[in-house]
Amino acid sequence: MTVDCLVNGQPTGALGASDRGLRYGDGVFETIAVVDHQPALYPRHLARLRRGCRQLGIDPAVADQLSDDVDRLALPAVGVLRLTVTRGEGGQGYAPPANPRPTRIVQRDPAPNRPSSWWRDGIRCRWCQTRLARQPRLAGIKHLNRLEQVLARAEWDDPAIHEGLMLDTEGYLAEATAANLMIEQGGVVIVPTATEAGVEGVMQGFLVEQMKAHGIPCEQRPVTADALDPDTSVMLCNSLLGIVAVTQLEDRWLPPGQWLGWLQQRIDDHRVALTPKVRG
Amino acid sequence: MTVDCLVNGQPTGALGASDRGLRYGDGVFETIAVVDHQPALYPRHLARLRRGCRQLGIDPAVADQLSDDVDRLALPAVGVLRLTVTRGEGGQGYAPPANPRPTRIVQRDPAPNRPSSWWRDGIRCRWCQTRLARQPRLAGIKHLNRLEQVLARAEWDDPAIHEGLMLDTEGYLAEATAANLMIEQGGVVIVPTATEAGVEGVMQGFLVEQMKAHGIPCEQRPVTADALDPDTSVMLCNSLLGIVAVTQLEDRWLPPGQWLGWLQQRIDDHRVALTPKVRG
Repeated sequence: MTVDCLVNGQPTGALGASDRGLRYGDGVFETIAVVDHQPALYPRHLARLRRGCRQLGIDPAVADQLSDDVDRLALPAVGVLRLTVTRGEGGQGYAPPANPRPTRIVQRDPAPNRPSSWWRDGIRCRWCQTRLARQPRLAGIKHLNRLEQVLARAEWDDPAIHEGLMLDTEGYLAEATAANLMIEQGGVVIVPTATEAGVEGVMQGFLVEQMKAHGIPCEQRPVTADALDPDTSVMLCNSLLGIVAVTQLEDRWLPPGQWLGWLQQRIDDHRVALTPKVRG
Repeated sequence: MTVDCLVNGQPTGALGASDRGLRYGDGVFETIAVVDHQPALYPRHLARLRRGCRQLGIDPAVADQLSDDVDRLALPAVGVLRLTVTRGEGGQGYAPPANPRPTRIVQRDPAPNRPSSWWRDGIRCRWCQTRLARQPRLAGIKHLNRLEQVLARAEWDDPAIHEGLMLDTEGYLAEATAANLMIEQGGVVIVPTATEAGVEGVMQGFLVEQMKAHGIPCEQRPVTADALDPDTSVMLCNSLLGIVAVTQLEDRWLPPGQWLGWLQQRIDDHRVALTPKVRG
């Protein structure tokens, strides 16, 4: 029997209905590409998970146990691995229990079916009306409170629109519903920083490191929506996609950037996302 | 066998690990006092649940099924009933499934053990450092994204401190971690409105209606923390507690308000919270 899900190391797909992960979204998760039977960018994902645990006051040692669980799950050639940690059960209302026993969930999912045109020709996006609230206590980590993303993604169901760009409530570019965002202006890659909203992306971190190591001009700073002039290129990246161009935003065509191909090549060379080349 | 939990009408305490309630906090809940074997202020709780479903795009008809589930659960003389609705499983990532089958959870919990001094002498509070982010798309409803409350409640573990007051990120009085807030100034009860943060309280709604019906001076408007001068009384209310005075905030003693006793009497007369009189 192939096991698709382990909860606290046990081959079950079920979880206690009193788990704080369900009651309050009290936990963190990671969505990881599986390439060549291995979780891609795994140390970076585990590091973000530990950072999230620390920020929520959950013992980050749970990441070591999760990693043991992953070792016991047969991983396919390509696919998706989802890791979830919650604070477990107990506590009085919102008050965390004195001695929490975190819940670990390891889930194996099939790779999402993305046409290769996404990588070759780019994708089409819209602006989301739902904005990200600014909450410095939760920014950066990948916690389980994701209603803003769900509401933003529920704004459209036209399959020709592939993603939605989100601003924060102050009008700064934050991210797409399920991807980070980079722009390119005058040959410089700009990574909008979201210190008060949004998730610190693992793929984005990998790409920024690659650019720095190879001397590609790259800046990290806050960017407002107004800054997207007609010459600006926009790219979206995440752990499954790697990086793709946004070629159409609402009714506007965006110019191609000069660094996209280079960035895609780095991802293919390191085999760290579910690109057409990696999927074969 | 006494059943404490029904999931989709079935006597199980377990839930699918892929439920969107766990994955994204994609759902709403209600915490209801059980008095005389009946859920108190039940129509109000169901109405808020339906409102929450509508705001998240979940079919509110699920509230009728939940209500059938509740009918099948033997309720104690006093206790707590927790109702949860999630969007169920499925969808691609954040995108809701085309035909969601919401998950219903009905849980029976014992009444929390609160000393009767809370009602008689009031409680002691602190200010929370964690502030509520302003998110108009989620304000008012009791959704499952409650990490802000968890982090705020985790700021202290001194059992002599009973609750923490929270401001929103703009400095407006929002609520306590698990209660709504009312203040009294010059014999006027003021209910801070939180149109961009916080939960619209069922008990608060009941009390405001009682005050209006009996001509008690009552205003609903935004209140900043600065407005809490030394003559201001503070009260906290929720569905389990009813209403109690805050007699100490940090190191400051707060004066008693003139309407607290009247409000407590309304709650006891209607038997709608777990007060000492109701618990017997």
